[in-house]
Amino acid sequence: MNCERWQMYELVLDGPSNGNPFTDVELTAIFKCRNESVSVRGFYNGKGKYKVRYMPEIVGEWTVTTSSNVAVLNDCKATFTCTVAQGDNHGPVRVAGQTHFSFADGTSYLPFGTTAYAWAFQEETTQKQTLDTLQKNEFNKIRMTVFPKYYSYNTREPKQYPYVGHPTQTTGVFNDNSWQVDPKKSGFDFAKFNPVYFDKLEKRIRDLDKLGIQADLILFHPYDSWGFARMGKQFDKLYIQYIVARLASFKNVWWSLANEYDLMAENGQKPLTAWDFIGQTVHQEDPSGHLLSIHNFYDPPVHKDTTKNWFDYTKPWITHLSIQSDNVFFVPKWLDDYRKPVVFDECRYEGNLEFGWGDNSALGMMDSVYRIVLRGGYATHGETYIDRPNTDRPIWWAHGGVLRGESYKRINFLTRLLADNDFDYVEPLAVQGPHWELAVGVAPNQQHVLAYLGDNQPEFEIFDFLPSGVTYTAELIDTWNMIIEKLDGKITANNYFHIPRKPYQAVLLTRIN
Amino acid sequence: MNCERWQMYELVLDGPSNGNPFTDVELTAIFKCRNESVSVRGFYNGKGKYKVRYMPEIVGEWTVTTSSNVAVLNDCKATFTCTVAQGDNHGPVRVAGQTHFSFADGTSYLPFGTTAYAWAFQEETTQKQTLDTLQKNEFNKIRMTVFPKYYSYNTREPKQYPYVGHPTQTTGVFNDNSWQVDPKKSGFDFAKFNPVYFDKLEKRIRDLDKLGIQADLILFHPYDSWGFARMGKQFDKLYIQYIVARLASFKNVWWSLANEYDLMAENGQKPLTAWDFIGQTVHQEDPSGHLLSIHNFYDPPVHKDTTKNWFDYTKPWITHLSIQSDNVFFVPKWLDDYRKPVVFDECRYEGNLEFGWGDNSALGMMDSVYRIVLRGGYATHGETYIDRPNTDRPIWWAHGGVLRGESYKRINFLTRLLADNDFDYVEPLAVQGPHWELAVGVAPNQQHVLAYLGDNQPEFEIFDFLPSGVTYTAELIDTWNMIIEKLDGKITANNYFHIPRKPYQAVLLTRIN
Repeated sequence: MNCERWQMYELVLDGPSNGNPFTDVELTAIFKCRNESVSVRGFYNGKGKYKVRYMPEIVGEWTVTTSSNVAVLNDCKATFTCTVAQGDNHGPVRVAGQTHFSFADGTSYLPFGTTAYAWAFQEETTQKQTLDTLQKNEFNKIRMTVFPKYYSYNTREPKQYPYVGHPTQTTGVFNDNSWQVDPKKSGFDFAKFNPVYFDKLEKRIRDLDKLGIQADLILFHPYDSWGFARMGKQFDKLYIQYIVARLASFKNVWWSLANEYDLMAENGQKPLTAWDFIGQTVHQEDPSGHLLSIHNFYDPPVHKDTTKNWFDYTKPWITHLSIQSDNVFFVPKWLDDYRKPVVFDECRYEGNLEFGWGDNSALGMMDSVYRIVLRGGYATHGETYIDRPNTDRPIWWAHGGVLRGESYKRINFLTRLLADNDFDYVEPLAVQGPHWELAVGVAPNQQHVLAYLGDNQPEFEIFDFLPSGVTYTAELIDTWNMIIEKLDGKITANNYFHIPRKPYQAVLLTRIN
Repeated sequence: MNCERWQMYELVLDGPSNGNPFTDVELTAIFKCRNESVSVRGFYNGKGKYKVRYMPEIVGEWTVTTSSNVAVLNDCKATFTCTVAQGDNHGPVRVAGQTHFSFADGTSYLPFGTTAYAWAFQEETTQKQTLDTLQKNEFNKIRMTVFPKYYSYNTREPKQYPYVGHPTQTTGVFNDNSWQVDPKKSGFDFAKFNPVYFDKLEKRIRDLDKLGIQADLILFHPYDSWGFARMGKQFDKLYIQYIVARLASFKNVWWSLANEYDLMAENGQKPLTAWDFIGQTVHQEDPSGHLLSIHNFYDPPVHKDTTKNWFDYTKPWITHLSIQSDNVFFVPKWLDDYRKPVVFDECRYEGNLEFGWGDNSALGMMDSVYRIVLRGGYATHGETYIDRPNTDRPIWWAHGGVLRGESYKRINFLTRLLADNDFDYVEPLAVQGPHWELAVGVAPNQQHVLAYLGDNQPEFEIFDFLPSGVTYTAELIDTWNMIIEKLDGKITANNYFHIPRKPYQAVLLTRIN
């Protein structure tokens, strides 16, 4: 049997279906190839079927040997050949050069993410629309939840639940006043997963992979009407073991421990102290070292209260910052503080909601993306347009569907602009001084410089940060109207050049000597 | 003799003019009234004239008794009657309620400052224009330097110098490579002041006082072509004693120890360690407790390097924060951290310069002012329009003259809007959560609420931060076009209301129950 490098190898075994196979049966397998030996947890998929999945990274012959407390699942053996990657298979995305990313085979990857938290649990037509929308645009990462979502404008019950059981309430936030829910109150058995639910989720992750899109999977979140945010340490661990066993073999999966983890503490759902264990468990369970982060609600620079600080992103098993912030000027400081990639997974969505996080203009969303990306960070898009009084229409940020805004077009434009000009990643040019300085990114081959002026409106500009003795041609970019226009003359570090006095312009330089 | 409360009492004495009266002669006077007894330093004003000035604050009979190391100046006695303040005389501005200001008689004072650093050293016609401009607008504070200024677009020599001597260079930054200048290199005798220079400055401070404008006097700055930024501790002290003796009796004077004090360290002009002594000396020399602060170049949130932190504003003799920053979202945190008024004395000037601090749009300047003021801080205007290639025209920020921009009109509008709606000061409404929340100020009598939406563009808004059970009428304000328009219906904490989806709007609420 063959398995392409970075694709999923799956071993399917028949075993007991009596009792509770999710907790009664232990199943692991050792995957070996040359000096590599990896222990991988299997999982129960219902109907007496057990699976062990693994994403091999070494080309060659592999052997698989299971161990189990159930005889029929113990010491099963298999072999397969891991073959070289083909076509668009570049492997998983990993951290490269400390502060950026690339695919495992070295192919450039700059995350331009979007957000549709619960898209995989909507009507089939909406899901199809979502995939169609993604195919037509340049987004290459999507933030999405494993658990269903209950929140403003997100109050419909999902068709399936991740656990066996029935909700005891069909509306409102589930509030048990405890870190660990009383199962009777919840109505769900947290020791029994619903494989149908997870199969469906996996289908969507595969669909994303076909489009070259990373699934930034949110494992926990506070928008909960069922008790899934309050399962307690024992069931959190069982859940992590299960979800990682199922999904760590998908090359396009990223782990996001939570969305707004700090709100879960504030809501009395999960204490701040829970996350170290959760994070370490995900890290230990994952044989393939997927990207792993955690996303905040509070933005620390503006708070004194240390319970509102970020999670400690210096922990070694956190691969990158996944932050909610519109302090877009802080990218250089945070890159410097953490020496990890800085991803603004939420920086105010374009939309017309009554919430500050969801009423940014398209211009504001675009402006943040330029400022973040050209300072060496990464920005994730989101769109929150509702249609009052009929608020039932899908909202991209929650349900997916179609995009109704204007910023995504400008993000597509920026994505292509960077790709067309050798920005395999963006080297931020360290312009010293206060943060009103321009956001300036350099292509790694030093042939191109992209400087975003934002609301700076000089009449004559001088790029004294350029290397001396180097000459460039220049194009003036109207980022909103997506117009690129040649600027007369040559640009060096020493010459003033005239630009029209208007906001949201960028200058693209191309080296000529 | 009578002296109105908070006006200047001046005792003039004849004394020696031989030797160096600035250093040879010690002169102080004790001012007594009832239980009050204040020691005040006198100063030499040239031509054998010595002066002791004081701004009495207690109404009643005062006695003055001098001491000096010169017999003719020693034990001179005088008396005067301090009478009640009349007309527009509300006394000096002081800190009130920890985080705001008021005049000494309790009259409301919200600083709406502007910046014209070297206006008092320009051609007479330009100075007259400046005063005329100030008279026609609502600014009630101006940042201005005591020493002449040498900087980009500020390279003309002043007609007079503060010290006796002649410049050894007539262009370029004075660079002695030492914290204390070699007098031969400077060409000025830092032990001999030029009273004509200071008389002229005082005339302008009086002119400002007549217009009800506070003179925020900058004692040191780095824009120096003469060595005044490098005099060393001994001459700094002499200068402080002299300037405070001359000016502490002007009720509209504020002390700003420096503009961009941290740049002076970076330039090798004055070490960071110098400022504690300078500040304490100003504080000790000033018998009238004028407002006192110091202004930075670097904005600390974005820097790791602790030499780029702000001066320690918790020091007891610092009355308020005088900061350069465009982190306008941090006002609540800084108010909370320091419990002193937070004045953004520089937050990016409106203009078309090639520098990020001087190429903000009018809209950007206006937006910052609204955001700062409605969060409980104060903002200072500046305008930096140049006219290339003829860059010789006065620039408001440096020379004064006329205003050419657009933001000042909006600042006038906001100033009047607050005054017309009982905002004796702004009580910032502590909207919890991230800093994308609205900037909301409440009038101290709770009758009015002004909420600035900035770039937030909800289609329906809800003000759930309002006190419950209170009903308001509402007006929608287009802050850029300065149009106030009635909104239909009543506003409470619970109701959604429609507003057009566009940026830079504010909502003014007036309580009706």
